[in-house]
Amino acid sequence: MPSDTPLTPVAVRDTSLRDGLQSIARTVPTDTKLQWLQGLYQAGLRQLEVGSFVPPRLMPQLADTATIVQAACQLPGLQVTALVPNLRGAEAALAAGAHVMLLPLSASHAHSLANLRKTPDDVVAELGRIRAARDSAGSPCRIELGISTAFGCTLQGVVEPREVLRLVAAGLDAGADEVSLADTVGYAGPQQVRSLFDAALRLAGERLTTAHFHDTRGLGAANVVAAWQAGIRRFDACAGGIGGCPHAPGASGNVATEDLAWLFASMGVPTGLQFDALMSLRGRLAGWLAGEPLHGAIWRAGLPRTLLAQPTEA
Amino acid sequence: MPSDTPLTPVAVRDTSLRDGLQSIARTVPTDTKLQWLQGLYQAGLRQLEVGSFVPPRLMPQLADTATIVQAACQLPGLQVTALVPNLRGAEAALAAGAHVMLLPLSASHAHSLANLRKTPDDVVAELGRIRAARDSAGSPCRIELGISTAFGCTLQGVVEPREVLRLVAAGLDAGADEVSLADTVGYAGPQQVRSLFDAALRLAGERLTTAHFHDTRGLGAANVVAAWQAGIRRFDACAGGIGGCPHAPGASGNVATEDLAWLFASMGVPTGLQFDALMSLRGRLAGWLAGEPLHGAIWRAGLPRTLLAQPTEA
Repeated sequence: MPSDTPLTPVAVRDTSLRDGLQSIARTVPTDTKLQWLQGLYQAGLRQLEVGSFVPPRLMPQLADTATIVQAACQLPGLQVTALVPNLRGAEAALAAGAHVMLLPLSASHAHSLANLRKTPDDVVAELGRIRAARDSAGSPCRIELGISTAFGCTLQGVVEPREVLRLVAAGLDAGADEVSLADTVGYAGPQQVRSLFDAALRLAGERLTTAHFHDTRGLGAANVVAAWQAGIRRFDACAGGIGGCPHAPGASGNVATEDLAWLFASMGVPTGLQFDALMSLRGRLAGWLAGEPLHGAIWRAGLPRTLLAQPTEA
Repeated sequence: MPSDTPLTPVAVRDTSLRDGLQSIARTVPTDTKLQWLQGLYQAGLRQLEVGSFVPPRLMPQLADTATIVQAACQLPGLQVTALVPNLRGAEAALAAGAHVMLLPLSASHAHSLANLRKTPDDVVAELGRIRAARDSAGSPCRIELGISTAFGCTLQGVVEPREVLRLVAAGLDAGADEVSLADTVGYAGPQQVRSLFDAALRLAGERLTTAHFHDTRGLGAANVVAAWQAGIRRFDACAGGIGGCPHAPGASGNVATEDLAWLFASMGVPTGLQFDALMSLRGRLAGWLAGEPLHGAIWRAGLPRTLLAQPTEA
């Protein structure tokens, strides 16, 4: 129930053009991505992760990331994030003018070696080189360290919280401007989320900015609430709930942007998101990605009458 | 993450044989229901709502409720709930030996008149008559007042919290042993849940025992956590996530029993539920209800490796 005093707004950062498309084999044409970008912007999103500066041979579907970043940077008031796997990607992000570069670091050593062929500490060392490059370029681009598999890993199983916290501290020491924690494989529960975010916030303060949840096992919304209760005010999400793991067919993807619009509206927390525009975008996504599963919950039943009677943000 | 000190167990009360079947037009044979009942019991459920003493012409699919109640009462340690719409139903529940009779009262006047053809206060008056009948029969059967549409209503829209609280107080005054709050149509968000349960707990204390959520808009788990944080320790759920509203095709139903098993396991809260047995039951339900949609989340991806390494309850 909306409280009488306005609550601090939260930012939903849509990552459908990056985490969403990364998990889908097909290559969406650049022109379609530009419509997608416009659709997100028109729905009120002011933070977007729009691509990844990975080698095109590894992810041909993200080969036009520089074009998308440059187009996104033309949209007034939009903060544009791009993923960078290494220094080379960071140089490309700086050249394209991204506002935030997100360097992923997997807290699971097994996952890190399997996916990045680096240990987590190798990534911390690379972060130091990226910081030096950013500083010597005199760029205002922010460096975000995104700690993935922070709540467990399909390869390794348990990821110890103390190791996650060690990597948060190491990343900040190495020059990250901010840090995010990601439940890459949908293992987290709300108590675990609260506990790890509480501990990480004690360590990183306001430099821990973002929570990134997948709804793989149905706890996406509950985990968002837990991180919000801990004090987090930026949440990654994907329009249409895309971003499912290609290794888990049928499993849900990232928490859906439209579901977070509804969740926060139900809590009286402003997001600036326009629900109807998100539903319209979802319909277009279903066409652009015909044959790919969309996920999320609110699209089935629509907003409650109790919210339709008032602005979505109220 | 499980804490080091054991947490108070919670009870999941499966209501698939009542709220689940009530929303499905087909009539499941009594023998199948008895297998279903056994499956729930074998999965560790010790609280079940197994039917409704409504006139068979209104709900032929629940016409064998007395038989199911009597069979359920044979299972050691099982607390058996049956819904009763009125005094006549209560007399049948007492005759069948139910341990709890659940009298629904819709806090939405519009919903109450449309569904029950009674005002909420008419139901409070009927509750007084049921209490008198129970007491004069010398029965230990507990009377639970289930306040539905407590978080909003598809007909009326907003349901004022103060009206819900008035009805909680009136119900306790009229002789209810306990009270539950239900989000019948999936309108609630976690802040609203916390706020209303906090207020109702201040009023009713430990006589407010139960939260009943539908996952219609994807916030079922988040709402369970919110009610748990408020202090509630009994949660209604349906195996297979059945219990969808027949007026909202495709919309999810009650929170899934297996999803709550996973949610509470992730929190280190004991439920006594056996996850594998619930998944096995889900498979049998899919056969018994072929053509009906099942819902829920955890069945797609299964438990995380982090939980498979330890007992489900730990």
